[in-house]
Amino acid sequence: MNIDYIKDYGEVIPFNGAFNLKPKEKTVKKQIKLSKQNDNKVYTSIQELIKKIGLKSGDTISFHHHLRNGDKVTRIILKACEELGINDLKLAISAIFPVHNFIVDFAKKGIVSQIDTNYCVGEVANAITRGLFKKVAIFRTHGGRARAIYAGDLKIDVAFIAASASDEAGNINGIMGKNAFGSIGYAMPDADCAKISVAVSDTMYPYPLSNPSITQDKIDYVLMVDEIGDPNGIKSGTTDITKDPIQLKIAKTTANLIYESGLLKDGFSFQTGAGGISLASAHYVKEIMKEKNIKGSFIMGGITAYLVNLYNDGYFSNIFDVQDFDLEAVKSLRENKKHYEVSSSLYANIHTSSPIVNKLDCVVLGATEVDTNFNTNVITSSNGYIMGGSGGHSDAAAGAKLAIITTNLIRTRKAIVKEKINSITTPGESINALVCEYGVALNDKTLAKILKNSKLKIIDIKDLAKLANNICGVCEFEKSNKKIVAVVEYRDGSVIDVIRQK
Amino acid sequence: MNIDYIKDYGEVIPFNGAFNLKPKEKTVKKQIKLSKQNDNKVYTSIQELIKKIGLKSGDTISFHHHLRNGDKVTRIILKACEELGINDLKLAISAIFPVHNFIVDFAKKGIVSQIDTNYCVGEVANAITRGLFKKVAIFRTHGGRARAIYAGDLKIDVAFIAASASDEAGNINGIMGKNAFGSIGYAMPDADCAKISVAVSDTMYPYPLSNPSITQDKIDYVLMVDEIGDPNGIKSGTTDITKDPIQLKIAKTTANLIYESGLLKDGFSFQTGAGGISLASAHYVKEIMKEKNIKGSFIMGGITAYLVNLYNDGYFSNIFDVQDFDLEAVKSLRENKKHYEVSSSLYANIHTSSPIVNKLDCVVLGATEVDTNFNTNVITSSNGYIMGGSGGHSDAAAGAKLAIITTNLIRTRKAIVKEKINSITTPGESINALVCEYGVALNDKTLAKILKNSKLKIIDIKDLAKLANNICGVCEFEKSNKKIVAVVEYRDGSVIDVIRQK
Repeated sequence: MNIDYIKDYGEVIPFNGAFNLKPKEKTVKKQIKLSKQNDNKVYTSIQELIKKIGLKSGDTISFHHHLRNGDKVTRIILKACEELGINDLKLAISAIFPVHNFIVDFAKKGIVSQIDTNYCVGEVANAITRGLFKKVAIFRTHGGRARAIYAGDLKIDVAFIAASASDEAGNINGIMGKNAFGSIGYAMPDADCAKISVAVSDTMYPYPLSNPSITQDKIDYVLMVDEIGDPNGIKSGTTDITKDPIQLKIAKTTANLIYESGLLKDGFSFQTGAGGISLASAHYVKEIMKEKNIKGSFIMGGITAYLVNLYNDGYFSNIFDVQDFDLEAVKSLRENKKHYEVSSSLYANIHTSSPIVNKLDCVVLGATEVDTNFNTNVITSSNGYIMGGSGGHSDAAAGAKLAIITTNLIRTRKAIVKEKINSITTPGESINALVCEYGVALNDKTLAKILKNSKLKIIDIKDLAKLANNICGVCEFEKSNKKIVAVVEYRDGSVIDVIRQK
Repeated sequence: MNIDYIKDYGEVIPFNGAFNLKPKEKTVKKQIKLSKQNDNKVYTSIQELIKKIGLKSGDTISFHHHLRNGDKVTRIILKACEELGINDLKLAISAIFPVHNFIVDFAKKGIVSQIDTNYCVGEVANAITRGLFKKVAIFRTHGGRARAIYAGDLKIDVAFIAASASDEAGNINGIMGKNAFGSIGYAMPDADCAKISVAVSDTMYPYPLSNPSITQDKIDYVLMVDEIGDPNGIKSGTTDITKDPIQLKIAKTTANLIYESGLLKDGFSFQTGAGGISLASAHYVKEIMKEKNIKGSFIMGGITAYLVNLYNDGYFSNIFDVQDFDLEAVKSLRENKKHYEVSSSLYANIHTSSPIVNKLDCVVLGATEVDTNFNTNVITSSNGYIMGGSGGHSDAAAGAKLAIITTNLIRTRKAIVKEKINSITTPGESINALVCEYGVALNDKTLAKILKNSKLKIIDIKDLAKLANNICGVCEFEKSNKKIVAVVEYRDGSVIDVIRQK
């Protein structure tokens, strides 16, 4: 990274190590409101509300992604903006799914000019890669988005916060109502810092709403719509354990690695994704805990029925929940006493007194590419097209004592481990080990000593790269000078990479 | 108020109506922290911690008052400051009780130079009145303190937050541990905004603490001490219903007034203090609710066993709790599902999207003096000595649809209602009615119409003042030009009055 300035992003602070950027005292301009006794907050006309709050072209509007591929709120708001002739909007949306493909049209029409997100799949991802948006996209981590909002780096004019339940004063949550989606943790920084916060809901409860996740002091308006979305859409992708024998082997090796590391003992804390290998790893970890009678402390990450069962069966005594991946998880958040909803800042913001990721023993993560320094890509595919994002990847990797990448060495005839990768999302220094079907590659000398006499097959990552190379052929890596279409911001606000047009 | 500037306070914005001061966009300097994986937060040596955080002479340190007359934390910290030669401290403590009398000695020694508080009784109150502190005291309301902290008007260098339970990461609450005191709501703005937040606890729980009220992302250090205080001290003053027949009469009239106003119907919300008349009013309100089968919405205020019983017996379905006045209330906060802990900002901060006080139907309040414009004094006695503070008085009065002052017309041979009062705490415009043993004085034309045909004895407040005057003799009111010892700041940050030296 030797770029000083990126248009429509600003000055670049180059990434210089996971814990080396000391934050400055920030000057945050905060709009403070005057609330009167009988202020009415509830609107049913979107256009009337947008006029009332003075939303205008060039503004930054934010959305959370808790409804994932079932979200209807972003479309409702953008459509109203279109009708009112508002354009050049910056869309700060914590993640983008195929349900948001319509945004491409809004980009073509000039209504949306810039994307600021933590994860992006579908047509919007392709459109960014092809340089279709007027302004460069910004990819952050989940914790990095919270950091940017609190630091004033990401200034939100209006936050539109989908809520499955609201009362007339703006107490809201995501666990009640016909379209309950669970934790609303990603919207908490927005509610704290946006100039104007609008709850968008389809179910009104009598005042006061029980168990509000965001309270009335932080919500300026409540917009009532027919449907905020389809909560079945939160189950995006697979949330079942893989049946693929190679992936099961990787998962089993991963569980053994965790056990041999010495971390898997009473008080163990664990984060895992919802993908096939991740869930299978959780399964094998559970088997060891069962055999050895180990009682864990907390599980974290996108919460699924599988993790809820680990809690219900007593393997872990707490769940920290920043988002839910199925309706069983939503039910658990509603009912289980030690299933806690947490904000993305508490979860992963490096610039707080301490995020929960810092208390993690182990996290199991995925990758689209890994280089021989363990630098990991989870944003682009090996052909350079955007097809994901960090989400909590860099955050959990930096915080956890043991961060493990699990992956097949080769996928769809392409090497995952290689000399050079298209784009760096998470720095290699945060990764302790990589597990593939050929064995375990280590990036941690202390861990290497601990594992010296274990039965694990330890293999040098360079040998893995060679092996993949031999099977797939030389990985062509073209250096591009095309325009920058996305900035990859590390969790501390520095820039770890850029993505160029395809 | 025609004072432009007060030394050691700053520029004066004169009070100009309860809802007329439009807040400016504030620029808040926020120190943002860098947290690493293995940062240790726990200290057992106070001096070591104070050196570590670099607390120095001239700094502002803050404390909450949830342990009320049982607090030991303030003394522990100030003693360590003395030993380290730190002086000229501004003490931002949400309330001061006789247990804090020792502060007078610390003022004489120059260690404490200024008091910033919402309520003050005991020797510190006398010392302020006599001009013993080097700098002018600042009296705020509970909501006003939260406002000042979030707006950056009250800048806290180090917040010392007593917590009856903590874990090693700084998740804290006031409901667990040997010295549980209940809600920790007054400390929430401090934890959000102080440059450095220190939890001070005597009971460490395994990570993660269940039901944290303030989370680890907001606490930088945990100081372990032997005893944070004596929770029996939270029962300061009377929390029993009065047996005085005149006060019972006033309370009964108050309940009738509330009923006749039309507000006492299903969904009714109510705040009342813990004093004799207030609790008796709650009792008579309950009797009417029982007779008419009325189901209330929420009760608020300092929570006592009496209010908890109203919840348990189904008269009210929610409790909003910013502080607890007895151990039964603490138990209820721990156990009852719809007994919610709320921050002072959510409770009463005028410069948020809407504090809960704005949803109040009725509040019953006390007074030391009331003038014929219904301006109310709750800070000084009628001889001008400080003996209390607004607490939530001005906040609830401004927010509630019906704010009632209850008082004997005469107390200890002194008139309470009179032409002129020593000091204004709550503006008359926020008060709808005054109830005394001679009847009901109204300050609300709409209410007057509603009550025209009621059986209540309506009496002009000027006639009440005359009556009191006839009984007690002319109330001498001396205009003083002595130095200003305290600024009375209204909840919006304007100055409603000053208190002069005695």
